[in-house]
Amino acid sequence: MGTVYRYGSWLPMVISVIGTGSCNKKIYKTAEKVGTLIAQRNAVLVSGGLGGVMEAASKGAREAGGITVGILPGFTKDDANKYVTIPITTGLSHARNIIVVRSADAVIAVSGEYGTLSEIAIALKLGKPVIGIQTWGNIEGVISVNSAEEAVNKAFELAGKTK
Amino acid sequence: MGTVYRYGSWLPMVISVIGTGSCNKKIYKTAEKVGTLIAQRNAVLVSGGLGGVMEAASKGAREAGGITVGILPGFTKDDANKYVTIPITTGLSHARNIIVVRSADAVIAVSGEYGTLSEIAIALKLGKPVIGIQTWGNIEGVISVNSAEEAVNKAFELAGKTK
Amino acid sequence: MGTVYRYGSWLPMVISVIGTGSCNKKIYKTAEKVGTLIAQRNAVLVSGGLGGVMEAASKGAREAGGITVGILPGFTKDDANKYVTIPITTGLSHARNIIVVRSADAVIAVSGEYGTLSEIAIALKLGKPVIGIQTWGNIEGVISVNSAEEAVNKAFELAGKTK
Amino acid sequence: MGTVYRYGSWLPMVISVIGTGSCNKKIYKTAEKVGTLIAQRNAVLVSGGLGGVMEAASKGAREAGGITVGILPGFTKDDANKYVTIPITTGLSHARNIIVVRSADAVIAVSGEYGTLSEIAIALKLGKPVIGIQTWGNIEGVISVNSAEEAVNKAFELAGKTK
Repeated sequence: MGTVYRYGSWLPMVISVIGTGSCNKKIYKTAEKVGTLIAQRNAVLVSGGLGGVMEAASKGAREAGGITVGILPGFTKDDANKYVTIPITTGLSHARNIIVVRSADAVIAVSGEYGTLSEIAIALKLGKPVIGIQTWGNIEGVISVNSAEEAVNKAFELAGKTK
Repeated sequence: MGTVYRYGSWLPMVISVIGTGSCNKKIYKTAEKVGTLIAQRNAVLVSGGLGGVMEAASKGAREAGGITVGILPGFTKDDANKYVTIPITTGLSHARNIIVVRSADAVIAVSGEYGTLSEIAIALKLGKPVIGIQTWGNIEGVISVNSAEEAVNKAFELAGKTK
Repeated sequence: MGTVYRYGSWLPMVISVIGTGSCNKKIYKTAEKVGTLIAQRNAVLVSGGLGGVMEAASKGAREAGGITVGILPGFTKDDANKYVTIPITTGLSHARNIIVVRSADAVIAVSGEYGTLSEIAIALKLGKPVIGIQTWGNIEGVISVNSAEEAVNKAFELAGKTK
Repeated sequence: MGTVYRYGSWLPMVISVIGTGSCNKKIYKTAEKVGTLIAQRNAVLVSGGLGGVMEAASKGAREAGGITVGILPGFTKDDANKYVTIPITTGLSHARNIIVVRSADAVIAVSGEYGTLSEIAIALKLGKPVIGIQTWGNIEGVISVNSAEEAVNKAFELAGKTK
């Protein structure tokens, strides 16, 4: 399910959700649903820890009882949205984007602008599955889907098949 | 206890344990005990995720039911010791040391060599409490103690008082 | 020309050239020409310091008497192509991409794949001018041109107008 | 002299000068002299690019006709002191310390506090020669000297013998 067998124990899978730091209500609802579904399948949610899509996904996951990690660009955990349970404070600014995708078994992008594009590009370079909802669909390699359910199903389907 | 009140909810405190990547049995036992005590007080354990002191502390925390985060220097989660529940893969080599200490409410150093010294120095620069067991005690600012119990007590005592 | 007035002295402008680490002869010639023109206008060339487009641009600049900086992803300056005069060894893997673009007054992309796309995205996020030759022209914000001359002219024209 | 033969061409050696961001006049004069001597031997000076010891060394090197690289922690080249000829803007905060030392053939520390200590520790971990003037002399591995001349002589003597 949302776990991988490693060294004789079951570890949670990690799904990273990326997207814009501020978004409209429809996108928020979609990202929240993505978070809920990730938590229901017992995976850990990693995000950039700030607002918008990152907050929505963290909210969904946390309210479903999941663990939410926020890889923060700034200097203090106070930057984290209130649904992040484990804030990781990097002080690395945009370089933290790379950690967000490198730590993932699969990446789900919801909406998003240039920052998200940079994460998509690095994820594809690293060979990670990238599933997109209303995002940079014109980038070869992004698997475009239309709903949170499809996105999470696809993410779990592909997560097991890459490093 | 091992939590902080933030935005209307109780979040886990984060204690980072730093130290050498390979160590003797006595140091291993001490670091393991540190991990156990951290988990028993419901804090999240952050470490560099590799062997030696990092593994020992993760083992102690995990076997006590805690969450263990490993901030890995390399490119794959397979580098993590088997007691890390949430591997964060940075690909940043030694630069990941800074994330380990920046994410902490308090830092406990057990033994350790130059890598550990770099983490101690950054932690002190950032104003984090640094408690040391058999480590660089000649550095002003390191609070030297003699046991795992003392270290964890001191860490929790000081953790609440800094950012 | 290729300088900015700062603190009472003229400093070199910095133009970063990004692109794929291996390329065909035509792309190589174009990137080399870009490097030549940058050096002839007394700007410093920054690149990722490796092969392909990075090497070609460095070759052009160096053979025209310019200074070439290579921001290397790995652990040793031996990774630099032989036209880099100042190797900066980061050990940060892909995170060094961000330094390449952040240090630039303008960015010229020649060809390029996902790594280059990540740099383009970060550059646009940072508000840097991005001029592209046979690269990700479908990304809004990239100024597509057809020749080395056009690219360098455009880069210098826009470099002065942003931070 | 201050060059290394690589790939059929002579490249400048790189000496990094580290130290506190604000300092008294005596330390400033010493660091300035270190910079002068580095430039006179045709090596490139790398520093963190800010004030105090970093500024002094850059001043000495630049006024002697040398190239001075500043690896900046912040987001804009305007942070650089006015003697930096090539500002490299990282946005990585303290993580840029690692780049400063990793890029060096030898490291000279002049005075310095916790930030400098973190750089010394990483340099020693990486096997770089570290020469210190009025700095953390209690750290095993630091070669303590008493003057700028001694420091630079020692740095060049040892620079050729490590990677």
